[in-house]
Amino acid sequence: MKFEVTILGSSSATPIHNRNPSAQALNINEKLYLIDCGEGTQQQMLKFDVKASRIEHIFISHLHGDHYLGLVGLLSSLHLNGRKKPINLYCPELLKEIIDIQLKSSETELQYEVAYRFTDSGKAEVILENQDIIVETIPLDHGMRCTGFLFSEKKRLRKLIKEKIDEYNIPVEYYTALKKGADYVASDGRVFKNETLTTDSATPKSYVYCSDTLYNEQYFDQISNATLLYHEATFLNNMLDRANETHHTTALQAGQIALKTHAKRLLIGHFSARYKTLNELLDEARSVFPDTELAVEGKTFSIE
Amino acid sequence: MKFEVTILGSSSATPIHNRNPSAQALNINEKLYLIDCGEGTQQQMLKFDVKASRIEHIFISHLHGDHYLGLVGLLSSLHLNGRKKPINLYCPELLKEIIDIQLKSSETELQYEVAYRFTDSGKAEVILENQDIIVETIPLDHGMRCTGFLFSEKKRLRKLIKEKIDEYNIPVEYYTALKKGADYVASDGRVFKNETLTTDSATPKSYVYCSDTLYNEQYFDQISNATLLYHEATFLNNMLDRANETHHTTALQAGQIALKTHAKRLLIGHFSARYKTLNELLDEARSVFPDTELAVEGKTFSIE
Repeated sequence: MKFEVTILGSSSATPIHNRNPSAQALNINEKLYLIDCGEGTQQQMLKFDVKASRIEHIFISHLHGDHYLGLVGLLSSLHLNGRKKPINLYCPELLKEIIDIQLKSSETELQYEVAYRFTDSGKAEVILENQDIIVETIPLDHGMRCTGFLFSEKKRLRKLIKEKIDEYNIPVEYYTALKKGADYVASDGRVFKNETLTTDSATPKSYVYCSDTLYNEQYFDQISNATLLYHEATFLNNMLDRANETHHTTALQAGQIALKTHAKRLLIGHFSARYKTLNELLDEARSVFPDTELAVEGKTFSIE
Repeated sequence: MKFEVTILGSSSATPIHNRNPSAQALNINEKLYLIDCGEGTQQQMLKFDVKASRIEHIFISHLHGDHYLGLVGLLSSLHLNGRKKPINLYCPELLKEIIDIQLKSSETELQYEVAYRFTDSGKAEVILENQDIIVETIPLDHGMRCTGFLFSEKKRLRKLIKEKIDEYNIPVEYYTALKKGADYVASDGRVFKNETLTTDSATPKSYVYCSDTLYNEQYFDQISNATLLYHEATFLNNMLDRANETHHTTALQAGQIALKTHAKRLLIGHFSARYKTLNELLDEARSVFPDTELAVEGKTFSIE
């Protein structure tokens, strides 16, 4: 199953040429999920050939402009381009009011439904489950209502060991039960333990999106063992005071979080405009967690 | 006096790669005036080195997203960059509500004042007058509240004819009155007519911004004799029905308007995303009004 993320924006609130504010497109089994939608996200999609029409779910972490100001434009464009399929929007409740007043003021009545699911930054919740994934909110510590998102592949069924199935001549109608973990009881009463007939499926993969937040251990348990952890790293650690003051994380802290939560790989982003180049941020995170990459515009990372 | 316009966006509502929605920066005597502010305008300013911090006045024609969705991001960035000087915002009244709810939801209290002047699309009004210019609204026909803007240089004082001033030995304290058009009465009672002592100053230049609108003669008188006329030209004339239906203008009509209103030069913009290249639009406008240019991103046009 395809499971990858394309970065559409890597900057924090103050604009900088050649970087865009937060937005990421997840492709999970050829379905598109958009995480955050800063100003200009539509243009970034055009640039990197991410088909907006294929988006089914949009997740907005919080209501700082650099995480959602591109949304009304995107919704309007989908309407202008004839969309009829609903969009599922997971966001703080106030965003509905912001969208509604702007649609009203432009005399736009969308031809498709926006199905809202409001997030609650007070607790982790499953907000979406389909045949491919489960999505949970991650309560973050940003001095305002803010949630990250945890995308976990669903646990697959166990795999039959073909030779054993043949050897014991197990009828096909038992296969599903075996895949789900049941033992096999033969007609003569003999019991075959499930683990002798099947093997476990691969460990489900997960993508964790943590932006924006102060370093705070409250969410570490929930994000542990991420296949790919995206964590904001707005500042270098020599600006730790500024990071604390603005409820952000440093690159060093992002590395430490990846290490403590046993992430397999780390992506850092949400860079302050003061950093014209990003090497120092990358080096700092790698000093504690070597398997780190920069979440820069146009790059696609496979979650595996 | 410098009087020039830099194009920041040339597209209409549906997004297209490498074009941005409407925004233009006017430099009048080294003061910056922003006209419309589509999504991504901040990025365009960075790209074309238009200093956002120098903007004093912002004019929003109407509340279709492609004309204002970049504004909240711009206002927020000015705040983050420490602006203290007020911004003057000329716009439909509903925009204040749209801005307020977004500032509130991001818990932002701007450090500078936004001084609103609400436009009324029902009548032409002077909305700004300073030492350099007079700005009037132009009621347009867009099926919703929409105004264009007419920027006219202020009429300069008359110029003294130095040889006559010397010949008649006119005292310096009379110069200002002469420049304002008064006759000179000498101490012996002789009257010297003003037109023998001064010449008229240059005709004031004007920049006209007409977007978005149906071809409608109602605004032709007001925009006549523009030094530079910017007029939307969303479609080719073979899509006249579509233009009428959506309250837009064709390139041919834009040329006809320039001709009828005796514009000196014409700029066309607000191009539909269906036109991947713009030559046909340019050729069509030029077929009736040869002195036409494309208002494309990054180009600066002198108003002279």
